[in-house]
Amino acid sequence: MDQDVVIVGDWGTSRLRLWLRQGKSVIHRRDGPGVSALTDTPEKTFLDLVGDWREAGPTGALLCGMVGSRIGWVEAPYATCPAAPADVADKTIRIEAGGLSVTIVPGLSCTNPLGGPDVMRGEETQVFGALALDEALRTGRHLLVLPGTHNKWTVVEDGKIMGFVTAPVGETFALLKQHSTLAAGGGSQADGSAEGFARGLSRIAEHGAARLTHLMFETRSRQLLDGLSPADAMGYLSGLLVGADVAAARDWFGPMDAVTVIGAGALSDLYVQALARIDVGATVVDGDAAVLAGLSAISRSQQK
Amino acid sequence: MDQDVVIVGDWGTSRLRLWLRQGKSVIHRRDGPGVSALTDTPEKTFLDLVGDWREAGPTGALLCGMVGSRIGWVEAPYATCPAAPADVADKTIRIEAGGLSVTIVPGLSCTNPLGGPDVMRGEETQVFGALALDEALRTGRHLLVLPGTHNKWTVVEDGKIMGFVTAPVGETFALLKQHSTLAAGGGSQADGSAEGFARGLSRIAEHGAARLTHLMFETRSRQLLDGLSPADAMGYLSGLLVGADVAAARDWFGPMDAVTVIGAGALSDLYVQALARIDVGATVVDGDAAVLAGLSAISRSQQK
Repeated sequence: MDQDVVIVGDWGTSRLRLWLRQGKSVIHRRDGPGVSALTDTPEKTFLDLVGDWREAGPTGALLCGMVGSRIGWVEAPYATCPAAPADVADKTIRIEAGGLSVTIVPGLSCTNPLGGPDVMRGEETQVFGALALDEALRTGRHLLVLPGTHNKWTVVEDGKIMGFVTAPVGETFALLKQHSTLAAGGGSQADGSAEGFARGLSRIAEHGAARLTHLMFETRSRQLLDGLSPADAMGYLSGLLVGADVAAARDWFGPMDAVTVIGAGALSDLYVQALARIDVGATVVDGDAAVLAGLSAISRSQQK
Repeated sequence: MDQDVVIVGDWGTSRLRLWLRQGKSVIHRRDGPGVSALTDTPEKTFLDLVGDWREAGPTGALLCGMVGSRIGWVEAPYATCPAAPADVADKTIRIEAGGLSVTIVPGLSCTNPLGGPDVMRGEETQVFGALALDEALRTGRHLLVLPGTHNKWTVVEDGKIMGFVTAPVGETFALLKQHSTLAAGGGSQADGSAEGFARGLSRIAEHGAARLTHLMFETRSRQLLDGLSPADAMGYLSGLLVGADVAAARDWFGPMDAVTVIGAGALSDLYVQALARIDVGATVVDGDAAVLAGLSAISRSQQK
């Protein structure tokens, strides 16, 4: 059974990541368009992408992410928190495409730690993956974060997702960078510098997240008056936003020794730095590894 | 002398307001394009607009705002805080246009109450106007706010502008409303409702401004899960942003009984409501009245 060939994937808003697996090994990997960028139906897009993989005789496909939303392939209504992999597995939707059985993982809804409603699609699978990969996360209460366009700050307790808060930090930064007067002086083209980022983090650490709105304009005024470069200015703005995001999470989560950051590359590094700035450790789990481990965990729950 | 006919105006980024005055009376009022929307040179635009006013024999023109910036007519370097009308009058720039003497009011720069650099152009004149119109503001320490694209929270003490903090709340709200996923469901077209605004204010009052980033996504999730209407959602987002702005100001200013809100209409009303929500009173000064009174105060200082 463990040597079955299966197709697994994370089909998000902006990209599709597909893997052909045999047992625990990845045989092939292929990327495709996100559900918001399709030029064809989801079914045809999927079948075209996996066409030559069919020769390997996959027994089925398992997909998580926005593929299960109203703008995806078929709507899989949210499972609710608290949720373990089995709770999500119970609410998967099975469809048939070109003779292949395709299982769609639902997202999660919750009442978040601030008492508001919240939703995720795809991140629940990565969180389950992190739990599968790191035994220490499976007992007690822990905070994980998936940085991105919409950060998901996720609380797990004894192996279940208890709730999560979405923080649209990436989206806000991108809008301010691309469209606002804060990016004066060509800043909109500049990547944020590491030095600027560190300065922004320090400014928030000094004043507290409650003053974020009153610190943001310095992104512009320091360019006008202090000769801050566009790259330093964008780093500074990023540092303010990420610093305030991290401070807010500690504010409602309470004291914490370490946070698990799920993701990859530069963005995860920024969160590791921001956590270190407030004396919180971080463990980074690669996002691809988390998706694969999470889909396996959901699949195992289904087979029980 | 007091019966001189003069042209006065506030030439900002997005609009030009011009008045023809005789003594304390306004004879005519005329609007024109802001300095960022000019189709001709500033000089020609100005002379075309005031052409028929020349028959009244104006002795000169006095203009404040972005007209004195690098993107304006002529650059008038910033005066520095602390600043009374005389300090600004000392740094005006005089030019000649079509036989008319035109005086450009400089803006102000400061080290703001959070220790960062800050700038304003035009708002200093309105603040001086509010001081001229309200004797109670001329002694002691007071907080004034000019809500807009970039809010200016201004501290005055014994008749001088001591410093100010710019909060780009209007700009951030507009970007999120027009471009972000928070405005899902057609929210980008909807004006914010009063009920939604009150809910947003309450949410921030309940949790504190430090959690703003972690409350914003509810603008979307409450539409998805709770059936929040687009108009209520945009009101809610506005309430969160304005509530956090007001909370931040109280945080650094300290205890305050009342804030003077300079402006007009719906936006000023939102600030009055947000201040009331945290038990702070508000006095509203009309923006046009403040410009006129401020330009008179600067003009009187020049004549001394």
